[in-house]
Amino acid sequence: MLPTFLDLASLNAFYREGGTPLDVVEAVIARRSALADKAVFITPTSDEGLRQAARDLMAAHPDPQSLPLWGVPFAVKDNIDVAGMPTTAACPAFAYEPAADAFVVARLKAAGAIVIGKTNLDQFATGLNGTRSPYGAPRSVFDADYISGGSSSGSAVAVAAGLCTFSLGTDTAGSGRVPAMFNNLVGIKPSIGLLSATGVVPACRSLDCVSIFAGSVADGTVIRRVAEGFDEVDAYSRKMQSRTLASAGLRVGVLTGAEREFYGNAEVERIYDHAITATEALGAKIVSIDYAPFRQAAELLYGGPWVAERLAAVADFFATHSTDMDPTVRGIIAGAEGKTAVEAFDGQYRLADLRRQAEKQWALCDVLLLPTAPTSYTVTEMQAEPVLRNSHLGRYTNFVNLFDCAAIAVPAGFDADGHLPGGVTLIGPAFSDDALAQWAARLHKALGVGQGIDKSAAIPEFSSALVPTEFLPLVVVGAHLTGMPLNKELTNAGGLLLKSGTTAADYRLFALPNTTPPKPGLVRVPGHAGSGIAVEVWALPPAEYGAFIARIPAPLGVGKIELKDGSVYSGFLCESYALSDAQDISHFGGWRDFINGGAGT
Amino acid sequence: MLPTFLDLASLNAFYREGGTPLDVVEAVIARRSALADKAVFITPTSDEGLRQAARDLMAAHPDPQSLPLWGVPFAVKDNIDVAGMPTTAACPAFAYEPAADAFVVARLKAAGAIVIGKTNLDQFATGLNGTRSPYGAPRSVFDADYISGGSSSGSAVAVAAGLCTFSLGTDTAGSGRVPAMFNNLVGIKPSIGLLSATGVVPACRSLDCVSIFAGSVADGTVIRRVAEGFDEVDAYSRKMQSRTLASAGLRVGVLTGAEREFYGNAEVERIYDHAITATEALGAKIVSIDYAPFRQAAELLYGGPWVAERLAAVADFFATHSTDMDPTVRGIIAGAEGKTAVEAFDGQYRLADLRRQAEKQWALCDVLLLPTAPTSYTVTEMQAEPVLRNSHLGRYTNFVNLFDCAAIAVPAGFDADGHLPGGVTLIGPAFSDDALAQWAARLHKALGVGQGIDKSAAIPEFSSALVPTEFLPLVVVGAHLTGMPLNKELTNAGGLLLKSGTTAADYRLFALPNTTPPKPGLVRVPGHAGSGIAVEVWALPPAEYGAFIARIPAPLGVGKIELKDGSVYSGFLCESYALSDAQDISHFGGWRDFINGGAGT
Repeated sequence: MLPTFLDLASLNAFYREGGTPLDVVEAVIARRSALADKAVFITPTSDEGLRQAARDLMAAHPDPQSLPLWGVPFAVKDNIDVAGMPTTAACPAFAYEPAADAFVVARLKAAGAIVIGKTNLDQFATGLNGTRSPYGAPRSVFDADYISGGSSSGSAVAVAAGLCTFSLGTDTAGSGRVPAMFNNLVGIKPSIGLLSATGVVPACRSLDCVSIFAGSVADGTVIRRVAEGFDEVDAYSRKMQSRTLASAGLRVGVLTGAEREFYGNAEVERIYDHAITATEALGAKIVSIDYAPFRQAAELLYGGPWVAERLAAVADFFATHSTDMDPTVRGIIAGAEGKTAVEAFDGQYRLADLRRQAEKQWALCDVLLLPTAPTSYTVTEMQAEPVLRNSHLGRYTNFVNLFDCAAIAVPAGFDADGHLPGGVTLIGPAFSDDALAQWAARLHKALGVGQGIDKSAAIPEFSSALVPTEFLPLVVVGAHLTGMPLNKELTNAGGLLLKSGTTAADYRLFALPNTTPPKPGLVRVPGHAGSGIAVEVWALPPAEYGAFIARIPAPLGVGKIELKDGSVYSGFLCESYALSDAQDISHFGGWRDFINGGAGT
Repeated sequence: MLPTFLDLASLNAFYREGGTPLDVVEAVIARRSALADKAVFITPTSDEGLRQAARDLMAAHPDPQSLPLWGVPFAVKDNIDVAGMPTTAACPAFAYEPAADAFVVARLKAAGAIVIGKTNLDQFATGLNGTRSPYGAPRSVFDADYISGGSSSGSAVAVAAGLCTFSLGTDTAGSGRVPAMFNNLVGIKPSIGLLSATGVVPACRSLDCVSIFAGSVADGTVIRRVAEGFDEVDAYSRKMQSRTLASAGLRVGVLTGAEREFYGNAEVERIYDHAITATEALGAKIVSIDYAPFRQAAELLYGGPWVAERLAAVADFFATHSTDMDPTVRGIIAGAEGKTAVEAFDGQYRLADLRRQAEKQWALCDVLLLPTAPTSYTVTEMQAEPVLRNSHLGRYTNFVNLFDCAAIAVPAGFDADGHLPGGVTLIGPAFSDDALAQWAARLHKALGVGQGIDKSAAIPEFSSALVPTEFLPLVVVGAHLTGMPLNKELTNAGGLLLKSGTTAADYRLFALPNTTPPKPGLVRVPGHAGSGIAVEVWALPPAEYGAFIARIPAPLGVGKIELKDGSVYSGFLCESYALSDAQDISHFGGWRDFINGGAGT
């Protein structure tokens, strides 16, 4: 049985139990046709096209384990190319037939995912509300009076309504985050350039990001890792240079004073305050920051020269077809005419100055925790004040790409009567995507209610799949174990616990005399038939790993340690000379039991 | 006795032998007044001002060892503020009296250096030739018919003529490099933002770098490290994030085919070819690259929207005083009027595309080795074709800041009749400054003839002072020693040899059986009174250090090793269990002597 929300775990369980992609696409077809909201898709994949895609997958790759996203349905925002379907950018006069899939779509298809259709958006991705489209306004899955958020409006609703496991959006001002909040979804806004923009209609080419909507951070991260990758054709594509955050004691910057603005929405404010409390309960340190430089940067996105990027993106079309455009979008883009190159550079200097001011706040904290959007609006309210209220929606999102940050929006529960969802966003420096995901997953687990429309769906636990692949493992055996005095050296360095385990039988453990804090020494003694020593395997970022090892005092050092399961990792060993007058504590089975036993007896 | 060229080693020797800063400034005063070229300074420090500065230094800091640049004379390009002297940018109508020293000047003064004057430049630093100034055209110290190069013209001549140890220039298009070539100097062009631009008149604010002229790479690097530092007031200031280059087997990209353009100057071409040969002899691998994307980027600096930065920098002045400007400079800046914001972004997209094309060339090589300038001109030739010939001078320099590179220009010998100097530039990615310095120092030593005007001055050897401070030391004892089979693992990681040495007396060395390549095992045996084991101490970048250690196979590992001199570093140790059937080779005194002795007997 497929659940209401098509998360990866449920889908994979369905396949393990004998379900097929054909079953899944039939469910998608049925759900899609039952959906009351008819504004979600601009071009749905035809029923027969879906069935054919499922059959093709099963024929080419019969083993469900052979591909990472085997039979996973997804939707694509209609400013991202899918071969065989028009790309409209929600502007019929602009539509074209792409010759090829966008880079990210090609990667996802190659991983076994199935496109269920092209989704509605604010025209040319210019908006955060979802009402600026001739194809209609998608609605929040929780109340059809309310906006879905935008510009990735249809992509969010498609996932939240259970039509697909994930979807692609784009995010320049917040288009991959605001709709996540309004539909109880996770919105992954990767660092600029991590996901290629080849085959994507530009909004602001220097800032655009392809984004991912999913039900959980774990799902979104798995999908991001499949979709990401360097693309030499996209001049703004960048290679991941993973950036670490402390895995304990994270300093989290939050709004304070006059910069707390919810435009009267006390429920979103309450949800935000609750998220702060929950973040602290996870072991983070809450820090009040001055949001002013972030807000001022946010205002530059439409108030400064960057709107000229939107004109540059469609200059030829605008010159000949501006009357075919949504009037609000047309008005925004027309604002770029007459801006000079000097103004463009002056705007960049202003941004650089604001970035410098923001750095003073970044010195106080590792990440920011902000409301994803300060409030929501009904479609009627939105249409009454389309520019002002859109700017309200972007208050906490617009700065993020201008400041080259990564962001993950997570659901944060519902308003008091369980009606509309709230959401918060964790924001970190460029390439902190993986580190951010660890915290976002824990925060979502603490705050979230279900996934999308399904309030009873379970939110997955933090997964070791979120550990960055380049981290280096290190076996610890004594004072660095979880809860021990030196464990903070690992967590401060961004270290993550990979697993607990036991060494092979031929290791012995000694209590080293005169060490502060008390430390053991592990040594291999071939032929010794013990029961193994309890250890933990941590993973550290490469640069921190080297610095950590360089600080280890004699007689300890690092060599290779074999575990009972046959795996071998670098880890703490002791020089033999230091063990001559040390107590053999091997029979305790590990340092923790020795410490506990020693205290107890 | 002070030598003709005032390099740091000579100056420090002079002070060690009892000379004083007062002696030095008297020499500066005498040399300055004897100098035939009267266009070097716009505002010299007065004779009495120099004497007072020397007396003040000696009173406040009597010990010559107390400050890193104690009593070191330097000149400052007149677009960089020095309190108490006007800043003209070579435009009298623009002149102002700065209230404070520029950030870098303040740091250098605080380190004990003494300002000898403000030097001439191409007006508003717009030029590479040194003839665009109402204060006259400084000349190459080797031929008064020839241009000095610019825009940092006076700063280069002041050092080359022996008036001071170093000078500050600025470098947007190549102004810190082209004059270095024409005056037999090293030109250090730091990564953007490494030296603060606070107190510097902008040319292109997003690209401008403060640069350093000195007689050697070692001197320039010492000075750069004093001058550099994060400045929160300068929005383009950046913190050093040191980037590694291989210390052996560096891949060096060079010009080939139609992109070899010397505008008919066969001597500069011959010098370039000789430099390539010398670079290869230093152990580098020479790689032919396609220079086209670099050349096309270079053309953008004046042909694209960046000229609008020059207008933005002086917009108010230009609006009211353009007739007070040098006509060539006025014409260039006027070209920015009428450029649109869309053109500004389109230019940035074009640059991003070219950068991507250039990355394909960067994939083939670690650094570029280019002629600093393809040719030189007489002042008469320059004035006859002031824009075209200036563009020729920038052919190999203009792209460097647009592509966010670090560069070091080094002298490369003289033309066949020993008349005019040639020069080459090593160019690496941002923050490779330290790594680049190691290679540039070796190349200068191999190619250079004297320093500045003094063709008999000795060029200093590579100095361990060039090893980046954040590198982590590692003691190696066997197959990683210099010349041994695994040494390349260290050099490929950018490792540098810090020193050779011997362990404390209580270490023993064993030849490990069945290891490929053969490896020894080092172990500490307290009480053992041997003669110590020969080792080398290498330094590795932190990230490479961690990855290196994680790859070490059992029974080897890393612990602390004490040397005979009492110093303690991390280094290779062996687990004791592996030594039970290993041959004790301690009496050989080290792995190298064992290998050699074993082969011989």
